[in-house]
Amino acid sequence: MRSFASENISPDVVAFQFAVRGKIAIVSEEIDNAIKKAKAEGKPNPYPFEKVVKCNSGNPQLLNQKPLTFVREITSMVEYPPLTEHPELFHADAVARAKEIIKATGCNGTTGAYSPSKGLAYVRQTIARFLEERDNVPMSPEDIYLTDGASIAIKIVMQLMLSHPLHGIMIPNPQYPLYGACIQQLGGKTCHYNLNEDNYWLPDINDIKEQYEKYQNEGIKIKALVVINPGNPCGEVLPVDTIKEIIRFCNEKKICLMADEVYQENIWTDVPFNSFRKILATMEPEIAHGLELISFHSISKGFYGECGKRGGMFACTNIPEFARLMMYKIISTTLCSNVVGQVVMSIICNLPKEGDPSYPLFKQERDEILGSLKRKAEYLCDIFNKCEGMSCNRAAGAMYLFPRITLPEKFIKECHERHEDPNETYCIEMLKKTGIAVVKGSGFGQKKGTYHFRIALLPPENEIEEVGKRIQVFHNSFIQQYK
Amino acid sequence: MRSFASENISPDVVAFQFAVRGKIAIVSEEIDNAIKKAKAEGKPNPYPFEKVVKCNSGNPQLLNQKPLTFVREITSMVEYPPLTEHPELFHADAVARAKEIIKATGCNGTTGAYSPSKGLAYVRQTIARFLEERDNVPMSPEDIYLTDGASIAIKIVMQLMLSHPLHGIMIPNPQYPLYGACIQQLGGKTCHYNLNEDNYWLPDINDIKEQYEKYQNEGIKIKALVVINPGNPCGEVLPVDTIKEIIRFCNEKKICLMADEVYQENIWTDVPFNSFRKILATMEPEIAHGLELISFHSISKGFYGECGKRGGMFACTNIPEFARLMMYKIISTTLCSNVVGQVVMSIICNLPKEGDPSYPLFKQERDEILGSLKRKAEYLCDIFNKCEGMSCNRAAGAMYLFPRITLPEKFIKECHERHEDPNETYCIEMLKKTGIAVVKGSGFGQKKGTYHFRIALLPPENEIEEVGKRIQVFHNSFIQQYK
Repeated sequence: MRSFASENISPDVVAFQFAVRGKIAIVSEEIDNAIKKAKAEGKPNPYPFEKVVKCNSGNPQLLNQKPLTFVREITSMVEYPPLTEHPELFHADAVARAKEIIKATGCNGTTGAYSPSKGLAYVRQTIARFLEERDNVPMSPEDIYLTDGASIAIKIVMQLMLSHPLHGIMIPNPQYPLYGACIQQLGGKTCHYNLNEDNYWLPDINDIKEQYEKYQNEGIKIKALVVINPGNPCGEVLPVDTIKEIIRFCNEKKICLMADEVYQENIWTDVPFNSFRKILATMEPEIAHGLELISFHSISKGFYGECGKRGGMFACTNIPEFARLMMYKIISTTLCSNVVGQVVMSIICNLPKEGDPSYPLFKQERDEILGSLKRKAEYLCDIFNKCEGMSCNRAAGAMYLFPRITLPEKFIKECHERHEDPNETYCIEMLKKTGIAVVKGSGFGQKKGTYHFRIALLPPENEIEEVGKRIQVFHNSFIQQYK
Repeated sequence: MRSFASENISPDVVAFQFAVRGKIAIVSEEIDNAIKKAKAEGKPNPYPFEKVVKCNSGNPQLLNQKPLTFVREITSMVEYPPLTEHPELFHADAVARAKEIIKATGCNGTTGAYSPSKGLAYVRQTIARFLEERDNVPMSPEDIYLTDGASIAIKIVMQLMLSHPLHGIMIPNPQYPLYGACIQQLGGKTCHYNLNEDNYWLPDINDIKEQYEKYQNEGIKIKALVVINPGNPCGEVLPVDTIKEIIRFCNEKKICLMADEVYQENIWTDVPFNSFRKILATMEPEIAHGLELISFHSISKGFYGECGKRGGMFACTNIPEFARLMMYKIISTTLCSNVVGQVVMSIICNLPKEGDPSYPLFKQERDEILGSLKRKAEYLCDIFNKCEGMSCNRAAGAMYLFPRITLPEKFIKECHERHEDPNETYCIEMLKKTGIAVVKGSGFGQKKGTYHFRIALLPPENEIEEVGKRIQVFHNSFIQQYK
């Protein structure tokens, strides 16, 4: 039997699931290709839509969100420095920033040299200043590590902690499936605490304590607890009291707190975003200087949405030097994260300010994107709550809704007979009938016997009504069909 | 004890070494910072040089190699598409290509959306055409996977195969230390075969067979064999017969052949580069259609040297569908590789041709870089062979020399008394005295009792004489000191 025979593939690799890019992404591409092929051959379109609306991934620019002009003016000059000699083409502050970045990197082909493994010093300094201003807490650039997106950062941090099948990490349920996938790839135990659908998907400290005890009684050594705030997929934003409770709990158990804060700019209600770093600094000194906290951020979300550039980072608080050296060592094996992504990370941490030449356009672009996301979150939530057998919490932040669907008993039974996941079959049906790709709730985790889907709030605003209606029509006829 | 206490860090992480970015990189940065600080404070420079010459890493643009104009004209326009409306600033074929790429990605902010996890279809098609032309063998774009540099590609492929402490992968000795580091991180066994210093660092099939038997007798299940061709750190280029012998061996043992071909454009003698794919296709059908071969390529090396962009790929030959699905799944958890890196990968696979507007400048830039590397390889090799107690094989390819140094017994004894690696101490001494950073041979692996260092051929040509002289002076006085 050869090395890549199915029986020889690592069971940890075979076992894990990653629904966001799973069957739904593959079928979406197949459908788009079938439509293109039919068109090219002059045959009728086999589907009642022109193109799949990809609401399965938080990928704004794929759905026509325009990149910030300020960001792209700079990156184009950094790519090809002779362009800085054409100030007529760009805003003056963008030219100045591009020159600053080109100088800071210290080589001609700025983005073409490996940077130090943790990232360019200039970029880490810029991020440190941003975090200091945001949180009013000192931050050393030495505690910042740049990575190709936050996803790989999470995997690196977990790799340090998981070295035994009974090492566990507590993650929310529902979770962003990267977490479960990483833990399983690293051979650890995925441990859950619950988000409470009846309380706007907020976690409950008593449930966290209960689950912890339960896992401990099973012999599992919990190493860390993950919080996603604002929440993916559910859109909850944690109040300060909850943040404090979680900090106290992690400190008491001496476990690491992993704070995924990539949606920090995406806030839709009057619940503000508070970083764990900021709240930690307000607590008793033995906690503030004790808790091992790692905070993640990214250029992929917010109003910048530069997903394809793969820029991410993590910031360490109270992490001992030896552990940080080991983080450095893991990153160094792939040499460094991509420098364009690093540059963009520095830009989103240092955006135009009032009075800057780029400010008016920047403000217009940012406000348009954030305003539109908020309106779409409210509009779709209303529509979903009007559907029979569907209910949806409003999202306080992030980029998704996670409505609950009541699937007919008859449909569930039929799926089980066909060995199908009813939640997946529902989503694939929706995709084929409406052209809208959403991710099955079972891909994130959900209370037994409940069903959901996650929809990204990303179609252009002038299409959102159509998206809402198509889902409504599909869902209602689906329910009728199985009544 | 908290999660990140030293005793709690995963032993697999603690154990592995990665010398290229290890102590030498850290001390280099410390020295550069000390010089800068002294300068800023108006104090005398504590070192007899202005700046460290970083020959420890294959990072051409850090040492002032200019990026190809054709590449950067395109990437700047792809970053900021309004620039395509200024054809006066760019070569016409670069504008046309930029427009083609912008169209192919199918979204406005071309590089800002996650691509499909394997990479943009356009990029994979372009690479497939390049490989077909290079090898005269059909290649499906579906068998190509884009990654953030070749290093992470290697880790992904190994992750599929290693799931038991007795699973091993055979790598050359000396090796590029990424290989050992990945195997150890994944909990597998690093198994060596030897490159023969007395025969221009070529591997010997009898040695490979012997080593394989030895590991098998120890209960280790070998899953794959790695070949680096052209070789890093030794610069050997494999003759066709050796390639065929290795293919036959891997096929007979039913193990995967991992072909690291990232230096395929860096050829310094009349031994031509032959890809494993090309040679495989010429063999008996049961081998040509049986051997599991994975080939790696990158934008970081060759004459393009776009290291910081982190663009890499692997191409599968005879890999079953289930294994390829598992590769897809691992990549999908980090969503996709950075799109700028993907775009550059497509450009280096489709460079200007004679008659294209960009061709004359492109040809001049390429020939200058490759000519200079070749001259530097020859010059330094000659110098090293003139030093007492130093000998060096000529490099047939890649970007490095790997001279052997005879260290004085007295020095070795002193190092051992101080629990130091003599090879490392020698390199750190060289760094402090000359400002030239090279990597200790012990970081790559070497025959017991021998010592080497790896030097990248990257200082600008007008500095290479100085680099050679400084090493010569240092080495001779070092030898005298311990006589």
